[in-house]
Amino acid sequence: MTAKDKIHDAVRNALVKDGWIITHDPLTIRYKGARVFVDLGAEQIIGAERKDEKIAVKIKSFVGPSVMQDLEGAVGQYVIYLSFLEQVEPERKLYIAISHPLSISAFQNEAVQMLVRRNHIALVVVDVVSEEVVQWMPI
Amino acid sequence: MTAKDKIHDAVRNALVKDGWIITHDPLTIRYKGARVFVDLGAEQIIGAERKDEKIAVKIKSFVGPSVMQDLEGAVGQYVIYLSFLEQVEPERKLYIAISHPLSISAFQNEAVQMLVRRNHIALVVVDVVSEEVVQWMPI
Repeated sequence: MTAKDKIHDAVRNALVKDGWIITHDPLTIRYKGARVFVDLGAEQIIGAERKDEKIAVKIKSFVGPSVMQDLEGAVGQYVIYLSFLEQVEPERKLYIAISHPLSISAFQNEAVQMLVRRNHIALVVVDVVSEEVVQWMPI
Repeated sequence: MTAKDKIHDAVRNALVKDGWIITHDPLTIRYKGARVFVDLGAEQIIGAERKDEKIAVKIKSFVGPSVMQDLEGAVGQYVIYLSFLEQVEPERKLYIAISHPLSISAFQNEAVQMLVRRNHIALVVVDVVSEEVVQWMPI
């Protein structure tokens, strides 16, 4: 099992422990034939529901050689998925799942925090060892 | 000379023909020590001025194996650079330069056009053979 798959499973398990029902893995977002967009990035999106809430969780494992390139990918993917979700399923909230403690340091950088605020990026921090949600950081 | 360098030179020459003075090549954007962000992506940013106008032009050559991945990179980079420019030099307008006819077809896709509109992405289309600006598409 790759590091990427381990993080995927950990996030999935953490969501279930947090009371969510996994409804899609992967979640496919379609907009005017642009299904191809689901192939963006290496990590897939998980769809989950809890009571009246629906979420789409995009996992970023930050296992690439450059944190900055991973971040660029994360922001690009978030903005693209958010743009599509707003059109086809606006009630579903989009989150980027980041792993604690592996990826968390990248998000403590002041410039990165400005990017997250300015671009309304919602985060969920997951402890990949205990497989538990550490913190929801909605928009 | 690589295809990437050819497009870079063509865009630079097209801007000069269009009356712009190239002031930075590459343009470095700094925000709270996050200079590292200028290393994002393979293509560098050109800074130019004409009368009272200042622009930053990010070239996307779309020479990668996947148009969608190139597009993801373009959107991610645009959003990141725009976020920083707003903080440090808000009067400088950011454009993505795309080549005619090489990259133009990707931007005729309906889903891509929605992304461009929704995310306020300004484009400048450059004919890389004649090295002329074909069209400015501001926000």
